[in-house]
Amino acid sequence: ISSKKINIEYTNKGFQFSTPDKNFALHIESRFQFRFSTPYDQNPVIFDDFNTERSTGFNINRARLKIGGNAYKPWLKYYMQYDLANNRLLDLRVMIERWQFFNVQIGQFKTHFGRERYISSGKQQMMDRSIINRPFTIDMQQGVEFYGRVFPKTLADFTYHISVLTGTGRGAKANDDNHLMYIGRLQWNMFGRELKMSGSDVSFHEKPTGLLAFAASTNRGSFTRFSSSGGGQLEGFVNTESGQFHTNQALLETAFKYRGFSWQHESHIKEINDYVTHSSQTLTGFYVQAGYFLSNIIDFVPENLEMAGVFANYNPDVDIKNNLQKEYGLAFNYFFQEHRNKLSMEVTHFSYDYPESFNQNEWRFRLQWDISF
Amino acid sequence: ISSKKINIEYTNKGFQFSTPDKNFALHIESRFQFRFSTPYDQNPVIFDDFNTERSTGFNINRARLKIGGNAYKPWLKYYMQYDLANNRLLDLRVMIERWQFFNVQIGQFKTHFGRERYISSGKQQMMDRSIINRPFTIDMQQGVEFYGRVFPKTLADFTYHISVLTGTGRGAKANDDNHLMYIGRLQWNMFGRELKMSGSDVSFHEKPTGLLAFAASTNRGSFTRFSSSGGGQLEGFVNTESGQFHTNQALLETAFKYRGFSWQHESHIKEINDYVTHSSQTLTGFYVQAGYFLSNIIDFVPENLEMAGVFANYNPDVDIKNNLQKEYGLAFNYFFQEHRNKLSMEVTHFSYDYPESFNQNEWRFRLQWDISF
Amino acid sequence: ISSKKINIEYTNKGFQFSTPDKNFALHIESRFQFRFSTPYDQNPVIFDDFNTERSTGFNINRARLKIGGNAYKPWLKYYMQYDLANNRLLDLRVMIERWQFFNVQIGQFKTHFGRERYISSGKQQMMDRSIINRPFTIDMQQGVEFYGRVFPKTLADFTYHISVLTGTGRGAKANDDNHLMYIGRLQWNMFGRELKMSGSDVSFHEKPTGLLAFAASTNRGSFTRFSSSGGGQLEGFVNTESGQFHTNQALLETAFKYRGFSWQHESHIKEINDYVTHSSQTLTGFYVQAGYFLSNIIDFVPENLEMAGVFANYNPDVDIKNNLQKEYGLAFNYFFQEHRNKLSMEVTHFSYDYPESFNQNEWRFRLQWDISF
Repeated sequence: ISSKKINIEYTNKGFQFSTPDKNFALHIESRFQFRFSTPYDQNPVIFDDFNTERSTGFNINRARLKIGGNAYKPWLKYYMQYDLANNRLLDLRVMIERWQFFNVQIGQFKTHFGRERYISSGKQQMMDRSIINRPFTIDMQQGVEFYGRVFPKTLADFTYHISVLTGTGRGAKANDDNHLMYIGRLQWNMFGRELKMSGSDVSFHEKPTGLLAFAASTNRGSFTRFSSSGGGQLEGFVNTESGQFHTNQALLETAFKYRGFSWQHESHIKEINDYVTHSSQTLTGFYVQAGYFLSNIIDFVPENLEMAGVFANYNPDVDIKNNLQKEYGLAFNYFFQEHRNKLSMEVTHFSYDYPESFNQNEWRFRLQWDISF
Repeated sequence: ISSKKINIEYTNKGFQFSTPDKNFALHIESRFQFRFSTPYDQNPVIFDDFNTERSTGFNINRARLKIGGNAYKPWLKYYMQYDLANNRLLDLRVMIERWQFFNVQIGQFKTHFGRERYISSGKQQMMDRSIINRPFTIDMQQGVEFYGRVFPKTLADFTYHISVLTGTGRGAKANDDNHLMYIGRLQWNMFGRELKMSGSDVSFHEKPTGLLAFAASTNRGSFTRFSSSGGGQLEGFVNTESGQFHTNQALLETAFKYRGFSWQHESHIKEINDYVTHSSQTLTGFYVQAGYFLSNIIDFVPENLEMAGVFANYNPDVDIKNNLQKEYGLAFNYFFQEHRNKLSMEVTHFSYDYPESFNQNEWRFRLQWDISF
Repeated sequence: ISSKKINIEYTNKGFQFSTPDKNFALHIESRFQFRFSTPYDQNPVIFDDFNTERSTGFNINRARLKIGGNAYKPWLKYYMQYDLANNRLLDLRVMIERWQFFNVQIGQFKTHFGRERYISSGKQQMMDRSIINRPFTIDMQQGVEFYGRVFPKTLADFTYHISVLTGTGRGAKANDDNHLMYIGRLQWNMFGRELKMSGSDVSFHEKPTGLLAFAASTNRGSFTRFSSSGGGQLEGFVNTESGQFHTNQALLETAFKYRGFSWQHESHIKEINDYVTHSSQTLTGFYVQAGYFLSNIIDFVPENLEMAGVFANYNPDVDIKNNLQKEYGLAFNYFFQEHRNKLSMEVTHFSYDYPESFNQNEWRFRLQWDISF
């Protein structure tokens, strides 16, 4: 394996080097995301978060180094993503993508479960995922995923994903118990075209493109939630034994894009069984999100300006009444160069009910620049 | 955005890739700094530091990976610097440098306050910054900086920097309170030529080049000092509330280079008001530093050998008498390839007074190799 | 130093950029190692490890980014290796390799002591080092190493390594006391050919190639063992003072490769003197390891399949009877592209004696894919 003649290009994955036979390729890309927020940045989670001191400020919200390519064969791909701001490894995976209908990836990756979480933070329509992401995401896991697209361009055009995972979250060095996590997702590409995992219709789909997906997951382990920090606990859960929680989840997802208009929605349900306290809790939530390039209908609006809105609704425990958390968001995105260089402005309103207390409300304003090189 | 023809060069920023239209460029560079020190490496800070066990040793003092370039436009630049030895992100910034008189940078960066701290550790004349750096530096911060040079090559040739910063130091994820940090710096390029932020006259200035600068800073927050580790406390300060300290600082700086001779000096004053203890403390300090390539006047001295010296004086509390800390340093630098490959030898003497105790003295010897690729 | 014409190649160190005069070169390579293990991954260390809950799982065992090359001169080389999975810097060194008989390296590196530890985890024959690695390895250290090969291709063909090190392990920022660590290694290249530091005879040596080596080390410090995590303590040792332990070690090593057959062996002895408890302990251990490409003698065996076995024996304290720890391992390696892309399967049996308790036994199965790009 040695090649003296190398092709170099600048692509939308950064500078790329490849051998003439395409057997080896390497691309390197960085992404910076700067954010100004007031009166604070993070979504409120609990009652007290509304009362904390205001902390208007500017920060580096995301800083990523991405290296990917292929080796030995064009279909043997690799990808890694390092979070420079938090010093942690995100993606690290090898993909065997030889046939469209059957592919395998192995390593650490975002599992194909819900669309909102799967879409990279650099290709989102809103500045952050909605409040239902925290309780329902399965986030990054280590393991194996089988996936493919069958009967393309027909009425039965489906994309499937089946994962077997250690189920202990990003960065775990070992399983906490002897149980694995299983996830399945079936997506119907209803118009015979596959919709990419990306927010906003920046590529202006000339033909309607949409999907309807169903996904489910089961796991027994020590965690009740996952994030980029790894496994953790939702409010009210305390872990004292390994393998304490048995969690089942399901979601229904729709998404659609057409001529500058984009829509996406997810409805989630999650049941957590606690083998220590012998109790069970059911959580539900959904969001609906839509965006449009108004220049399509209003002349004086700049061509690259999109307006988008989201409404999310989260019920942390269906057995408790008067316990809803709501998020209303409105965003304006200006795309200098599609998702690779964009400026976003967002106003969000949070309205949380508390069963034994009064309702809490708050506004938040954020300004963000996301740029990839 | 895609280009098939890429130019590659080796430059003094490492290997560099660029598109023919210069709209995209990427350079990658590493820097290693190895150091042998006896009887210890770090500057003493408090009385007890003089009595600790000696720990002669060799270590990797600095290890940096630097990636920079421009994207979309020649004037839209980016830069990041990662500290491999300590696993932390240092610089991460985007610069809009379209006009000489008005530029903006955004992200995390060393603020333009004092020269000693701003000069990269790879371009210093002495092996480390003097003892006054610890109490007075504002170090890296997150925010926005506006800067430019006006009336170039005239008698009124000025360089200005104005920064609005979160004020919580390197690596902070959020502001600790609702107050921002403000910094201003005005530099008079007295000979109509701008002196670079670099120690030692390695480029042998044929014409005298100098500056006179004044800078000031104000901040309210939880910290009384900053370093590459982020915000921290000076001796005698304890933080119990957010926004506890109101800190005002000012400095006067001079620097000059001419035919192998280099001079630089800073005088600092810093006032810390504590809103919890209702007390106030004033700190002062200065250093003077000079170097010369003796081969200019003595024949047998190697051409690339510089001799340099520093004297620093720090008063941690102007209200307490007999409380001065002094540093005397003498260094020899051999420049194999200017600052990119150099060997340094340094002898330092510390003499610290303590109001209720005897005076402490100590010698230190260090040898260092700094190399960039 | 600037060059406009750069050569690019894909080599077995990844993509490589170099100037036409060969004075500057940079190569960049990644290595991922994925592992499935049951009932657990790590070697047992103490009695209780046999009783812990089983944790079958998949994980990213190793993820490395490697950047190397040379600068200013072809013989001034640099290398760094970053452990992405654990966020730590491993190698960071500069090598002056001007003559075969005398070279110097400076920085942080794996010391040349024993073969098993020195061989990169990506070029091993077994999936991990044996149980004697943990107590006897000196691992990565910071300092200086002098090395060379004298009288090549004669009967007196020797390779030597002499190191002076801080002796506080990987990642240490300073020495813990004023004592340095000293290591010497003398290797007789008995057939006048030097055997590379790599497991398995993947390059099919047509001529017998072997070595006989002796190494010794002495250090006084705070640690009784070293690993990639830095300094630590063996079971039964507690550190309360700096410079508490005086450790002397020695090893005898043999290795041999010929036409697909490979052999290696190390015998270790280590004496730890504790200046606090005024006690002394002697540890001994050895392993023997061999492998063969059976396709040489059996037709139907795939050409790239190797079978290998190891037996290791560790005595944590020679003064205590009935105290032996034994490891028996059997591995099958399939080399897609020599060590750069290989699949390994391994079965291991552990049998540990405990003086005041019964004997413990356990089986372990592991599957691993190691790939470099």
